[in-house]
Amino acid sequence: MITLAVDCMGGDHGPRVTLAACRQFLDSHSDARLLLVGQPDALAGFAHERASVVPASEVVGMDDPIEVALRRKKDSSMRVAIQQVKDGQAAAAVSAGNTGALMAISRYLLKTLDGIDRPAIAPQLPNAKGGATTVLDLGANVDCSAEHLLQFAVMGSALVSALNNEETPSVGLLNIGEEQIKGSEVIKRAGELLRAAGKAGHLNFYGNVEGNDIFKGTTQVVVCDGFVGNVALKSSEGVASMISNALKQEFKRNIFTKMAAIVAYPVLTALMNRVDHRRHNGAALLGLRGLVFKSHGSADALAFEHALNRAYDAARNNLLDRVRTRISAALPLLLAAQSESGPSAP
Amino acid sequence: MITLAVDCMGGDHGPRVTLAACRQFLDSHSDARLLLVGQPDALAGFAHERASVVPASEVVGMDDPIEVALRRKKDSSMRVAIQQVKDGQAAAAVSAGNTGALMAISRYLLKTLDGIDRPAIAPQLPNAKGGATTVLDLGANVDCSAEHLLQFAVMGSALVSALNNEETPSVGLLNIGEEQIKGSEVIKRAGELLRAAGKAGHLNFYGNVEGNDIFKGTTQVVVCDGFVGNVALKSSEGVASMISNALKQEFKRNIFTKMAAIVAYPVLTALMNRVDHRRHNGAALLGLRGLVFKSHGSADALAFEHALNRAYDAARNNLLDRVRTRISAALPLLLAAQSESGPSAP
Repeated sequence: MITLAVDCMGGDHGPRVTLAACRQFLDSHSDARLLLVGQPDALAGFAHERASVVPASEVVGMDDPIEVALRRKKDSSMRVAIQQVKDGQAAAAVSAGNTGALMAISRYLLKTLDGIDRPAIAPQLPNAKGGATTVLDLGANVDCSAEHLLQFAVMGSALVSALNNEETPSVGLLNIGEEQIKGSEVIKRAGELLRAAGKAGHLNFYGNVEGNDIFKGTTQVVVCDGFVGNVALKSSEGVASMISNALKQEFKRNIFTKMAAIVAYPVLTALMNRVDHRRHNGAALLGLRGLVFKSHGSADALAFEHALNRAYDAARNNLLDRVRTRISAALPLLLAAQSESGPSAP
Repeated sequence: MITLAVDCMGGDHGPRVTLAACRQFLDSHSDARLLLVGQPDALAGFAHERASVVPASEVVGMDDPIEVALRRKKDSSMRVAIQQVKDGQAAAAVSAGNTGALMAISRYLLKTLDGIDRPAIAPQLPNAKGGATTVLDLGANVDCSAEHLLQFAVMGSALVSALNNEETPSVGLLNIGEEQIKGSEVIKRAGELLRAAGKAGHLNFYGNVEGNDIFKGTTQVVVCDGFVGNVALKSSEGVASMISNALKQEFKRNIFTKMAAIVAYPVLTALMNRVDHRRHNGAALLGLRGLVFKSHGSADALAFEHALNRAYDAARNNLLDRVRTRISAALPLLLAAQSESGPSAP
């Protein structure tokens, strides 16, 4: 039996979406149990033999500063859900709440693994090969050092090996050209560290990749700092929604285009399913001594259910142990990288 | 009469594409003259009363290191084209060649304007409002300082005011959230400089924007360093081509979907025209004492013609004088920013 703790109050829509997703998830996973964390009144309508309510009186708002979430709201649904993981009551926690707060509370309660300075968020983005590319960090780790990027590479490899059953997933370093001489000083140094890790057998390092390679699926893992990752993700979301809105507008233009839309409907539906980011919702927070998954804040029930599925798969495939093992194996390398450049900022 | 110098040998396709574009351009601009720069043999087939050949014996390859392009190939078509601008023979040069080489040669021959450390490349990307967003830098200026970002903002405003007849275009700073406290140290400091420039009346500063705002068209200008800009551009190109390929595949799936494609053809064509990046080809190199335009290396004749149009419009609208005037007006501010943080690296 696998137990997940769900922050039912988080996200833009709260219990309306999270509870609907929980019901779907329980119906399709007979060996799963859910701890529904939140204000009991808001969760009162939900009854299932494999679900129980864990009360939490407060809610972290989507705009709450990290300090407020961390120090003032000590009985928030987000924090209580993560506490379930720390206490061994749940194998993983899932939340659609405020990313910064989730990172900070997870790190505070669960602590990072040895050799890891900062947790990273690693979503999977759909690619042209019909699979998904794991990109990290997308957790707002700005001003990353080369050593952080090495840590991200090791953690991302462990994630893909656990979730996709792929022993040595290929790792690319996001850069502005394929040549080793390209990029900022931090990126060039990260390239050296990643090549060394590849030679030492800790990574399957492909080399530099560019933004379009994320969606081509050139490598299974793409490593970048949180600033660049965020811009890549948001820009690509921006283009995708511009194109899909333009498509809708063109089909609505007049009676003839509306008729064309009816004929083309099955094709357009198939297209939307292929590039539907909801089916890739649920990003792992990596580098912690416990499993936490982040759902998109605007997730609907289908998307939130996918985040629950992702957390369930990770728990069942012992993601935590795999990440720990990989990081332990690479620890001499990680520590050597850190000591060469002085201690990196936490 | 407006004269442009065209590097006919540059780009992935060379004279086959550039000459076809030149003919189209001359046919639709009766007050334009072209200097066709390149190896005379390759250009021999072209004759037009308003075109003349300027011989250049060498060609900068798409993979040539900057040093080779700059120091060894002194008679390259790229360099000779830029020399025409320096000598006052042409109002602007246009090349589809290697970006790094074009930046380096332009800077070496033309020099930067007072107050500007580095030239920037400023393409226009289509947005959901049906217009275009000017993004800079996309010229591989990595490790930019806050002062460089301020320079980019002033130059981008001047570009949009010259090309789009918009006196005070809005400027956004690319970041990972709207709040002032977001981002790296460089970005936060850039935010302070841009706000100060806004208060002093040198800029219409909107505040922070995110990657998706480029394609929403939230602001007319978006400022970022060359690394982030490159990743944003390549990522969005990656998504756009993934979606358009998926669309083609879905329509080709079987006889019914092929029939649907025929019915939907006019709609799909209208869509492609709307998001066709070829119609936005041609990016200005800003901050130089002369006009240079960069075409995408893989441009076809239609795309290269658009780059010629862009250069023609810039020359006719006195882009160079406008940029110079704006920068002169902001010069005390730019110099103050530089001296506060020590001289920035060239």
